[in-house]
Amino acid sequence: MKLQVAIDRVTLGYAFNLARQLDDVVDIIEFGTSLVKDYGLVEIGKRRPELTHAQLLLDLKTFDEGPYEFEKGFDAKGDILTVMGAASSDTLQGVYDVTRHRQGEMFIDLMETTDQKVNQIAGFENVIYGIHHSHDATAGFNAVSTVEDFHKKFPKIKRISVAGGIDLATAKRLADQGIAESVIVGSKIIKTEDPVASAKQFMEVLK
Amino acid sequence: MKLQVAIDRVTLGYAFNLARQLDDVVDIIEFGTSLVKDYGLVEIGKRRPELTHAQLLLDLKTFDEGPYEFEKGFDAKGDILTVMGAASSDTLQGVYDVTRHRQGEMFIDLMETTDQKVNQIAGFENVIYGIHHSHDATAGFNAVSTVEDFHKKFPKIKRISVAGGIDLATAKRLADQGIAESVIVGSKIIKTEDPVASAKQFMEVLK
Repeated sequence: MKLQVAIDRVTLGYAFNLARQLDDVVDIIEFGTSLVKDYGLVEIGKRRPELTHAQLLLDLKTFDEGPYEFEKGFDAKGDILTVMGAASSDTLQGVYDVTRHRQGEMFIDLMETTDQKVNQIAGFENVIYGIHHSHDATAGFNAVSTVEDFHKKFPKIKRISVAGGIDLATAKRLADQGIAESVIVGSKIIKTEDPVASAKQFMEVLK
Repeated sequence: MKLQVAIDRVTLGYAFNLARQLDDVVDIIEFGTSLVKDYGLVEIGKRRPELTHAQLLLDLKTFDEGPYEFEKGFDAKGDILTVMGAASSDTLQGVYDVTRHRQGEMFIDLMETTDQKVNQIAGFENVIYGIHHSHDATAGFNAVSTVEDFHKKFPKIKRISVAGGIDLATAKRLADQGIAESVIVGSKIIKTEDPVASAKQFMEVLK
C-alpha cells in the first residue's frame, strides 16, 4: 500500500525542504490546498524541487474551469492533480481529457459527493478515487469500515485512496484490509518532531 | 443592482492595474479563482492596491479547511470571500464564524448545490447566495428564469447574486426583474478592448 504525505499550512520553503527529505522515503508527496492557495502554482512550479522517487500531488480541489486549472497544475510539474467529485460532470470530463493529453494522473476527491454522483463518475479509467473525511467535520470517521462499504457499493472502482485523521494503527488495518491502494497521512507525520522518522514508521506498517 | 466584475486568467500585474481603473466605476471587483490559485493569497495580499470605492471579492471557492482559508483571505484584505455551497455544513458554519469575527462578508457559491442542501444552508444572516452556472457547462443557462425560480423556491434568501455568461441584454433584464442584488460579469467586460468602457455600459443598464 502506498503512502501519500500531505504537507499543509507551512511556508513554501519548509514544504520544499521537507519534500526533498521525504522523496526517498514515501510514495507520493502532496502539496495541500493551503500551499496552492497561499503561494500559487506559478511559484510552486518555479521552485519545485526535482524529486527522484516520489510523485508530487497538487491538491487543487478543482471545482470549475477544470481544463485551465489542470493545465496550470501540470505546468507546475504536478504528477497527480485533484478535482472535486461534487463538481459538474462537464468539469470532470474536461480535466480527464487534459490529464490524458498531458499524460498525468487524476485524483477525484469524493468529499461531500453523493452515492448517486459517485455512480455517475465511476467510469473514468485509471483514475484514483479518494474517500476523504472533511478536515472541518465534527463527526467521527472510521476509515476501515468506510473503505469496505465503499468497495461493496462501487465494485468497479479499482483505485481507492483514503484520507482523514489516519494514524499508525488505522494505516496498519487499512494495509491488512488490502482494498485501498494508498493512504493519505497529514498531521500524524508533518506535525511530529521528526516527520521523516514518522514517515518511515508508516512505511513500515504499510509494507 | 450592483455590478461585480470578475478578473480571471490574466497576470497579477494586469489584474491589479485593471482593479485600480475599475475602482471608481463598479461596485465589486472579483479576483477569480485562477488568480488565487496561480499567484496565491500571500502575494495578492502584499501587492493588493488600495481601493477607495469598490469592494474586493476573492473567489477562494473554499471546500474544506474553511476557517484557515477564510483567515488567509481576510489577511489578504479581501472584503468578500467565497465558499462552495456543496461543501460540508461544518465548513460553511466555520467560515461563517470567521467572517463574523473578522467583520467581512461571505458569499456562498451554489454551483452544483442541490435544492435540499440550499434549504439546509439558507439561514445564514446577511450572506450572499450566488447562483452560478459552471464555466465548464455545455448546457445553456437562462439567468432571468433561473433567478425567478430560485426566488420562488427559497423566498427566505434575501441576498442573491447571479453569474454565468451575462451579457448587456441579460443584465438589463435582471435589473428590471429586481430580485438579484448583484450580477457578475467576466469576459463580457474583461475580454473587450476597453474593459473600463464596457463596465460603464453595464453600470448604465443596471441603474
